[in-house]
Amino acid sequence: MLQGFFTIFGFMKILRPTFLINENTCRENISKMARKAAKSNCIFRPHFKTHQSAQIGAWFREFDVERITVSSVGMAQYFALHHWNDILIAFPFNIHETETINELANRITLSLTIESDFHIEYLANHIKSPVGIYIKIDAGYHRTGLSANDHSTIDSILSVCKSNPVIRFKGFLSHFGNTYQSRGADEVNSTFSKSMAKLKSLQNKYIHQFPDLLISIGDTPSCSLVDDLSDADEIRPGNFIFYDLMQLQIGSCSFSDISSIIVCPVVAKHPERSELVIYGGAVHLSKDFITDENGQKTYGRIVFLKKDGWSDSIEGSFLSNLSQEHGIVTCSEDLMNSTEIGDLLGILPVHSCLSANLFNSYLTIKGETVQNIHSF
Amino acid sequence: MLQGFFTIFGFMKILRPTFLINENTCRENISKMARKAAKSNCIFRPHFKTHQSAQIGAWFREFDVERITVSSVGMAQYFALHHWNDILIAFPFNIHETETINELANRITLSLTIESDFHIEYLANHIKSPVGIYIKIDAGYHRTGLSANDHSTIDSILSVCKSNPVIRFKGFLSHFGNTYQSRGADEVNSTFSKSMAKLKSLQNKYIHQFPDLLISIGDTPSCSLVDDLSDADEIRPGNFIFYDLMQLQIGSCSFSDISSIIVCPVVAKHPERSELVIYGGAVHLSKDFITDENGQKTYGRIVFLKKDGWSDSIEGSFLSNLSQEHGIVTCSEDLMNSTEIGDLLGILPVHSCLSANLFNSYLTIKGETVQNIHSF
Repeated sequence: MLQGFFTIFGFMKILRPTFLINENTCRENISKMARKAAKSNCIFRPHFKTHQSAQIGAWFREFDVERITVSSVGMAQYFALHHWNDILIAFPFNIHETETINELANRITLSLTIESDFHIEYLANHIKSPVGIYIKIDAGYHRTGLSANDHSTIDSILSVCKSNPVIRFKGFLSHFGNTYQSRGADEVNSTFSKSMAKLKSLQNKYIHQFPDLLISIGDTPSCSLVDDLSDADEIRPGNFIFYDLMQLQIGSCSFSDISSIIVCPVVAKHPERSELVIYGGAVHLSKDFITDENGQKTYGRIVFLKKDGWSDSIEGSFLSNLSQEHGIVTCSEDLMNSTEIGDLLGILPVHSCLSANLFNSYLTIKGETVQNIHSF
Repeated sequence: MLQGFFTIFGFMKILRPTFLINENTCRENISKMARKAAKSNCIFRPHFKTHQSAQIGAWFREFDVERITVSSVGMAQYFALHHWNDILIAFPFNIHETETINELANRITLSLTIESDFHIEYLANHIKSPVGIYIKIDAGYHRTGLSANDHSTIDSILSVCKSNPVIRFKGFLSHFGNTYQSRGADEVNSTFSKSMAKLKSLQNKYIHQFPDLLISIGDTPSCSLVDDLSDADEIRPGNFIFYDLMQLQIGSCSFSDISSIIVCPVVAKHPERSELVIYGGAVHLSKDFITDENGQKTYGRIVFLKKDGWSDSIEGSFLSNLSQEHGIVTCSEDLMNSTEIGDLLGILPVHSCLSANLFNSYLTIKGETVQNIHSF
């Protein structure tokens, strides 16, 4: 058990809630996904909204990644400054950011996501630099996007593309977010197949007019669990760099693929109700939760720190509640007895994207600080 | 309805999700709470974790506030740099931050919160500069703190205080967080009275040894809804500066007391399922939700922007889902028909503390930018 002012990895001290990453596991996750994309003959355009870090972005270059996805214009600016020259903003075009988009599109290969006549008309009237556009398709998730049957809107968008010298149609983009409701490879594969069928029918319909059109899909469960992704032309997973408890519950990853934890000091003990209090709350972990196999609302699972990373998840212990800065760990008798105030516990996050977004930097288990967009 | 590139207040443009505050309402909220504290003869030591802003902090000085509460050592450093010289860190003492605490305590009047023999012994051995300490009491919320019956631990902590030249016992501190489960003034008053009785019995027991000991309480529901707070010596509410839907549901505030909204551009429309998509997700609003009077999980309510602030909450419309950057507004037919892509909608947040924490600055309805700790 680690107590007091500990030098866990070399001479590093962890003083307060810290987002800790295992760089090797991150690289293995990238490597695996890059290999799968190559095997399926897909463009690998990873989503950088999860890590939002130029330094982590650089790791992807080692796997020949040159094209990336982001979810905001601000992220596109940040990564463009860090020499990413082919960026897709996979979020519905926000007309208020047209000025920045024009500036960016003048410097890099920029692609936008649209899903309405309004979007394309606005673009046609205001875009001065060449942009690629993807038409967002709702393949069953029902968050946003055009229905795959809405040929009339699609035709109308495409006719503007054909006549506009700076707007180039790149393809149909979808996020199969309903895979997050799936459990296990079979359910994910079934959702994937149903969703992909809709995109393929669109591709078949429009390929003659646009021989280069791409089918671009994104979710980490599909990209992790579907063996053959060759029906897609481009994949955009993001979360897989870190994975998390939500992905573990879906079955997208194994425990050893999870490459990030939040290290939190224990600040109080309540043995009478089997609870530890940690310095680590909603402003470090987000309020996302899962319901575990015992029906418990869970904001995180508990691990011990080790020299080379962290332990298995501690049985019978979990993060049961969060307020702004406090976390409540409901714990086993063993954990209670072996823990002192000042010990550092690791929390496996429920949703690593939202937790990572709450930190200005990450720490690797080798003791290196990794900056992200928030410290820029 | 506001569309396109709108100059809502003067020549200001809102381009992306923006935390908008009504400065007058903030000042009225401060004024009301300051008057109540004065009437109840309480020290007003507001919690600055909600706004985390030196500029907003300065508004409190106009109401003669000189003592403040924060929830982290980092926040204490930030406000000390902004000339706050009497700061209480109302979070269990984190031994790993002792060095910074010693530095701070050397410059300002600093108070810490402890709740165990371990804490006081560690302090006795490591604290070099004078600090005040509050003993955290669990008066029924069961998040953390000593039971009010645990006289043996309290005695043991106090005996260290008596013999240590730099540690001064200031009093008993509690957060009646169980008022958040209450609905209406009667329930909040009942929780307040039960909790306060425990603190008063402690005060009666120890006042002879420590004639200056304070009873310090904190929650916004009690401080808003209990008319006579004179049983407390000090109040530490935080959320009341902004209030939010959670407080409205409890009854702590009226609609017109809510002084902050998040302004979000509409980016897509789905009339077939009565949904609008806004640029505004978990990274702007947090994943905190309430269950409304119709049993709906609600991440926010919708308002229109007006020249002098915002409208009433729009009937039949609410923020029904959030992902990282997307928000889904389930909306009335009227709202759907009158809204275009590019319009700006206001979202009343469920939990303003967590949403404010996700922004680097706020915008006032007069068009002024207010910096906070994240832009520092």
